[in-house]
Amino acid sequence: MAASFARTGKKIVAIGRNYADHVKELKNAVPNEPFFFLKPTTSYLPSGGLIEIPRGISAHHEVELGLVIGKGGRDISEANAEEHIAGYALAIDMTARNLQEEVKRKGLPWSAVKGFDTFTPISSFIPRSKVADPHNLNLWLKINGQIKQSGNTSNMIFRIPRLIQHISSIMTLEEGDLVLTGTPAGVGPVAAGDKIECALVDPVTRAKVEQIAF
Amino acid sequence: MAASFARTGKKIVAIGRNYADHVKELKNAVPNEPFFFLKPTTSYLPSGGLIEIPRGISAHHEVELGLVIGKGGRDISEANAEEHIAGYALAIDMTARNLQEEVKRKGLPWSAVKGFDTFTPISSFIPRSKVADPHNLNLWLKINGQIKQSGNTSNMIFRIPRLIQHISSIMTLEEGDLVLTGTPAGVGPVAAGDKIECALVDPVTRAKVEQIAF
Ligand SMILES: [Mg+2]
Ligand SMILES: [Mg+2]
Ligand SMILES: [Mg+2]
Repeated sequence: MAASFARTGKKIVAIGRNYADHVKELKNAVPNEPFFFLKPTTSYLPSGGLIEIPRGISAHHEVELGLVIGKGGRDISEANAEEHIAGYALAIDMTARNLQEEVKRKGLPWSAVKGFDTFTPISSFIPRSKVADPHNLNLWLKINGQIKQSGNTSNMIFRIPRLIQHISSIMTLEEGDLVLTGTPAGVGPVAAGDKIECALVDPVTRAKVEQIAF
Repeated sequence: MAASFARTGKKIVAIGRNYADHVKELKNAVPNEPFFFLKPTTSYLPSGGLIEIPRGISAHHEVELGLVIGKGGRDISEANAEEHIAGYALAIDMTARNLQEEVKRKGLPWSAVKGFDTFTPISSFIPRSKVADPHNLNLWLKINGQIKQSGNTSNMIFRIPRLIQHISSIMTLEEGDLVLTGTPAGVGPVAAGDKIECALVDPVTRAKVEQIAF
């Protein structure tokens, strides 16, 4: 069931501000504890699909490592977090940046600015066996062949067990849920017609673990 | 499938500030257009269950009429909205008010403050045939026998077709999704051990359409 998460999963829990270089570029404060928002699963877009940019929206790309939940749970400890992860996914957390600036100023929810249809471009399920160390993966995003984002998951401010522990202390995680772990620096706008490519690379073997294109 | 929405539905889309008296009591601005946030379906609590109040949280009750989506859709027009509603539900949109004040001030997402486990106490599915007019229903909430909230759905700032149109212009609605339509005035804290009762009443026939207790 976790392998079909994009069709069967119920929620996407997305962590904000989890790479220091990205926190800096948006002039945000480094958080004391993880925070997250929800994205609807209706925002999933399989590789090869069309990212739709609504009129008047400045849509930014945020390439992220996703965790696909296998065994569900609540109040999961950091020590037990790993056994709840069935696998991974490569995702883009598309964000209506101009609307986000407005809702942040007004103290309004983020759900709409993160939740448009096609705003979570997503890879297939990546089984755990394909990832030697989730805290040592390069992830990059290119637009029209040019590198825009390039980071390594070792630079997460809050590591994966802490994210699972924090989220599950508030809301139960279920099989097929996706956790997005935050984006490194280099976010920027996507224009209609842009070719977007992302990859997840093992820096030790230099093998491409996963790639997606839109 | 809509009848089992609490088990099978994927998302809860909750409208904020949709009754003028409630907007006033929280000293918020009356919105120019509807806005919403997402709640996870893991927050559902069937009638008779225990509302859990996390340590350090001031948990407020917000009694609301829910719309259960039948036929899914995207970019639904106001004229067609009604045919996408399979039925109704009576719900409490529990809110960690102290944390909400903090995230509003900091421009952070609302997902956690609205999304704790048990934070969406919910009735059974109410078929359309039991509701003569969804824009003329009384809804009330009592704590320990005392009326705290009492409103009528005719006082919604944005009416049901407009809510469906607005949400579906951003994200596809699917069968089993729940739309919470906002709360009237009288919100306030729930303490551990409080007895909470809510009802939906047809003011014409004075018949109780639905009731829940926790
Ligand atoms: Mg992100
Ligand atoms: Mg939010
Ligand atoms: Mg509410």
